[in-house]
Amino acid sequence: MRIGIVGGTGKEGKSMARRWALKGHDVRIGSRDPERAKATATELTSDTGRALSGGSNEWAIADVDVVLLSVPYGGHSDTLRALKDGLRGKVLIDITVPLKPPKIRLVHLPAGQAAALEAQAILGDDTPIVATLHHVSSVHLADADHKIACDVLCCSDNAEAMQKVIGLVEDLGMRALDAGPLQNAVALESLTPVLLHLNAKYKGAGAGITFTGI
Amino acid sequence: MRIGIVGGTGKEGKSMARRWALKGHDVRIGSRDPERAKATATELTSDTGRALSGGSNEWAIADVDVVLLSVPYGGHSDTLRALKDGLRGKVLIDITVPLKPPKIRLVHLPAGQAAALEAQAILGDDTPIVATLHHVSSVHLADADHKIACDVLCCSDNAEAMQKVIGLVEDLGMRALDAGPLQNAVALESLTPVLLHLNAKYKGAGAGITFTGI
Repeated sequence: MRIGIVGGTGKEGKSMARRWALKGHDVRIGSRDPERAKATATELTSDTGRALSGGSNEWAIADVDVVLLSVPYGGHSDTLRALKDGLRGKVLIDITVPLKPPKIRLVHLPAGQAAALEAQAILGDDTPIVATLHHVSSVHLADADHKIACDVLCCSDNAEAMQKVIGLVEDLGMRALDAGPLQNAVALESLTPVLLHLNAKYKGAGAGITFTGI
Repeated sequence: MRIGIVGGTGKEGKSMARRWALKGHDVRIGSRDPERAKATATELTSDTGRALSGGSNEWAIADVDVVLLSVPYGGHSDTLRALKDGLRGKVLIDITVPLKPPKIRLVHLPAGQAAALEAQAILGDDTPIVATLHHVSSVHLADADHKIACDVLCCSDNAEAMQKVIGLVEDLGMRALDAGPLQNAVALESLTPVLLHLNAKYKGAGAGITFTGI
């Protein structure tokens, strides 16, 4: 699949790009700084033996099936407004957690209840959104050989987009679960500060979640 | 420990009463209907071989250390307002999930963001609250011999109350984890509809959560 990554030079975006490239996907690294994106793409090409390319965010999403949005919450709505036209008709994977630094271990509900719901309000119905991957530690993702002991919850109002993204999450090496409509992203996003609290409290370096009984 | 259960004739309250009684705690079953509470207490006494007693909710909380609140969200704030004076100085365990029937698989944020935060607003600072046990299926709890494959998250602003409740949750047979301040109850409460969705989607009968990496 052709995947464009907005914010592809960050920890999460880069790690997912590496794992997807190793699975044979055509991955494009986007960044506000195209030169940085190109450098990341060159590094990942050398790491993986697969050809990745890099450029602006606009370029990265221009000719793809799926877009991964990987930016801090502070830049979430501005980024979406800027890319709105280019995102039309593509599936958007939104992994944003509305953290409010410095209190990143405390649940912060944004005005729209969830970043993913705010994204849908900005993009309208022409861009199906799947909210997912809020609970996977970048520490685990970074090591592409590492099996990750974490189930991944996916929320969407669009069944086709959900199926596509479930497949892509499984290509990252984890079990993906349909967690219901996009409204349920409120639960997914707000659980991340709890995981960060657990890491701090119990000296973990990447708490994850698995589901039992299903 | 002396534990009073408000709503002790319901599925969750009754199951917890049984497990705590078997661990040697002095458990009082409360209900709006004192006769029903007495019948439940008699049944549990016969089940467990421990002496449980039953009566009104006011009676159940009168002379205890810890109160478990186990009522539907629809009766949550009225129950707390009615019991406010009797709860003063006791630790309140709030397991309420603000479900909005019939859409119980969809996250519903209450006006105060979380039932536990609404409880704190009603009760004030004289009653420390611990929000917990939102994710344990009553199916699993009901069988007192059954080992439950579920970690239990606990939120509180009061460290002493937190420690007390962590011990009581472990007496129920599960690992209890400090999940941070009461504000994080937003995440805990909103995850329950997701578990109900997972049960429906994957034909499970009691999805649970465990945490890895800590």
